[in-house]
Amino acid sequence: MERILTSELAAYAGERVRLAGWLQHRRELGRVTFVVLRDGRGVAQVVLGEDDDAAELRELPLESVIEVEGEAVASAQAPGGAELHAPRVRVLARAEPEVPIDLRRPRLAERLALRLDHAAIACRHERERARFRVASASLAGFRAALDGLGFTEIQTPKLVASATEGGANVFEVDFFGRPAYLAQSPQLYKQMLVGVFERVYETGPVFRAEPHETGRHLAEYVSLDAELGFVEDHTTVMAVVREAVAGMLERVEALSEAVGLLEIELPELPAEIPSVRFEEAQLLIEEDTGERVVGEPDLAPAHERSLGSWAGREHGCDFLFVVGYPLEKRPFYTYPDPARPGFSNSFDLLFRGMEIVTGGQRLHRYEDYRAALAARGLPEEPLTGYLETFRYGMPPHGGFALGLERWVALLTGAANVREATLFPRDRGRLTP
Amino acid sequence: MERILTSELAAYAGERVRLAGWLQHRRELGRVTFVVLRDGRGVAQVVLGEDDDAAELRELPLESVIEVEGEAVASAQAPGGAELHAPRVRVLARAEPEVPIDLRRPRLAERLALRLDHAAIACRHERERARFRVASASLAGFRAALDGLGFTEIQTPKLVASATEGGANVFEVDFFGRPAYLAQSPQLYKQMLVGVFERVYETGPVFRAEPHETGRHLAEYVSLDAELGFVEDHTTVMAVVREAVAGMLERVEALSEAVGLLEIELPELPAEIPSVRFEEAQLLIEEDTGERVVGEPDLAPAHERSLGSWAGREHGCDFLFVVGYPLEKRPFYTYPDPARPGFSNSFDLLFRGMEIVTGGQRLHRYEDYRAALAARGLPEEPLTGYLETFRYGMPPHGGFALGLERWVALLTGAANVREATLFPRDRGRLTP
Repeated sequence: MERILTSELAAYAGERVRLAGWLQHRRELGRVTFVVLRDGRGVAQVVLGEDDDAAELRELPLESVIEVEGEAVASAQAPGGAELHAPRVRVLARAEPEVPIDLRRPRLAERLALRLDHAAIACRHERERARFRVASASLAGFRAALDGLGFTEIQTPKLVASATEGGANVFEVDFFGRPAYLAQSPQLYKQMLVGVFERVYETGPVFRAEPHETGRHLAEYVSLDAELGFVEDHTTVMAVVREAVAGMLERVEALSEAVGLLEIELPELPAEIPSVRFEEAQLLIEEDTGERVVGEPDLAPAHERSLGSWAGREHGCDFLFVVGYPLEKRPFYTYPDPARPGFSNSFDLLFRGMEIVTGGQRLHRYEDYRAALAARGLPEEPLTGYLETFRYGMPPHGGFALGLERWVALLTGAANVREATLFPRDRGRLTP
Repeated sequence: MERILTSELAAYAGERVRLAGWLQHRRELGRVTFVVLRDGRGVAQVVLGEDDDAAELRELPLESVIEVEGEAVASAQAPGGAELHAPRVRVLARAEPEVPIDLRRPRLAERLALRLDHAAIACRHERERARFRVASASLAGFRAALDGLGFTEIQTPKLVASATEGGANVFEVDFFGRPAYLAQSPQLYKQMLVGVFERVYETGPVFRAEPHETGRHLAEYVSLDAELGFVEDHTTVMAVVREAVAGMLERVEALSEAVGLLEIELPELPAEIPSVRFEEAQLLIEEDTGERVVGEPDLAPAHERSLGSWAGREHGCDFLFVVGYPLEKRPFYTYPDPARPGFSNSFDLLFRGMEIVTGGQRLHRYEDYRAALAARGLPEEPLTGYLETFRYGMPPHGGFALGLERWVALLTGAANVREATLFPRDRGRLTP
């Protein structure tokens, strides 16, 4: 007999079927034992009467892996509208007693550190794993949107000879006896490949030796990167960001089970995301918080939250572009705003008051790179391979990067980005 | 006027249009200058008569980036069936003279090391970049096939606390002052996540400190990994490998332009890939080469080539499974063949005489792991988080890994896996 999934049980009402999965929960009600069986996609209830020949179900430790044959019976009370009666059981793997995480509750009650210590067990919880289905769907949606816009997927090296985004917070690797570094982003490579494919994207790990433990930072995270040539300016890039986010939301919305389990409120995405200039944003923050921020070169997390609330009130929107950051806080490859000295053709996208995307137009002329590096006192030599690209013809271009874990955390209501990471890495955590 | 792509030119015959791209080639024929313009998707010919007002086209260095407006004219001789007449030019970026790679030839003539030194320029060549479109399509096909089989995409950490596949050839990282390592594969994590999702896959970088420089090895490559629970044995996994390869081929086949440029001979994939037992394979090798190999625990590259030829002769097939490798050469998590002591439920897939996939059934009981580690003299402690998964219920499972660059190299007729890697990494190469 072919195994069916728990989600298919109702369709087989009246037939004998075989389920397989983990023994998640067990309740005795008088002489009847109710068992919840969890498989990769859902759960089903198995009902064991006192005459049934499946005594193992009464004593097997939770999380044991079993196959259960029985009769599919329609039942309005059972999850999914059906349950399994008259079960016969085959044990595939007997678990040890006392699972370190209590997977029987509707929500995990353990504190975050303990959940992360036992991540592979904690993620078995239906609600937890739903979060990672949201991550998977978001990735698929990002790729589908960019594929549709003529982008080519690329794979660039994570072992690099120099720090991509500056010397701080970079991990050093022993590369056959000499130093190498872990890429902080695919920035330089995706730009170089605009010269090849015009439009490229990459979804992969990036590494930041963040010394601080905050709820927003990880030592390793998944960056969704895109870069495109022949742009007018940063606004061409912002239009692509909007399409990428639309693609991600579309796929998440299709995951109705995960959306329901996590009670996700899907944001509305307008045809044009509202945007505010950096200096206007600072005035709004001053108005809201009373704090003095005009003249500061960047926004603090509390300022982003203030702007997020403003976007909700003013535009009824969970998204807000902040445009035209001061040049001094952006990387050397940032394109200056031709009309406003000291400012740049760059942007961040805030989602529910937190930055999830950074992007902008980049320099594209070799001489501009030489001048920008000289102005910052940075040497050209470590960037030789990168700079060569600009010596031999590069179009005006720009791009952006979106942090997957932040997006998933904000979308699914997780307070800490670690809850949206299967096996998070930070200063204090390298296992499991 | 909206820019159109070179590939769209023929559809606009008779209209004025705007192209943009790189000045790839220029020939003077009497008083007429023919210019080849390359954009992200193809090339188009621009014809400059002596009265035309676009003198820059005659003197601009190759690889300069330009916009060209002109009249689209149908022409049987021109690539794509149309060319651009009466051009007017706007220069977006003037290149330096003497591009280090000659992109005008039908095939690059520079030796491999020079091409890799200038990878971002060399990959601009239409034939070279086509190879990476094949890589991109293969990735998309892999994901589509596994999505269709109910797999969930996962993202697992590349920074790990101990060597995944044994202590040799692992890169060490300075992780906030203590040692960490770069993951040699997502093996342990994908198994742990079978306990969560049942079926998982990951496409991402893996790292091997390979001391040897061969045409088959890289220090960093892209691994397409899958793992699934509730398998019968390794044959369940082999059936999934076949579907994954079918998905990859389907997407590559759809790239008719790249297939044509690279003169790819697409392999036929039978409904069931032929397979041969390890010991039978050794007898076939002895017959073919006269070498004595029976009793050896593994196959050398020359042996795989011999088997590849045999599969071609005997089965008319570019693919061959070799099944049931001796346990001693497979990793500790390998499931033994219950019927044949010393052998295992494992396999390799050869494509055109080279291993591109390794896979098999894994142990799933905690006590079997303890025994396997003890038998190999390996400590349990570094694997605590991994082993916990098996203490709390894991189904029979298995999986496989496919090396993307090898696949692309073999499919596109590249002699060296570095030709199928955008920015390869090996002992001697960390840039560009």
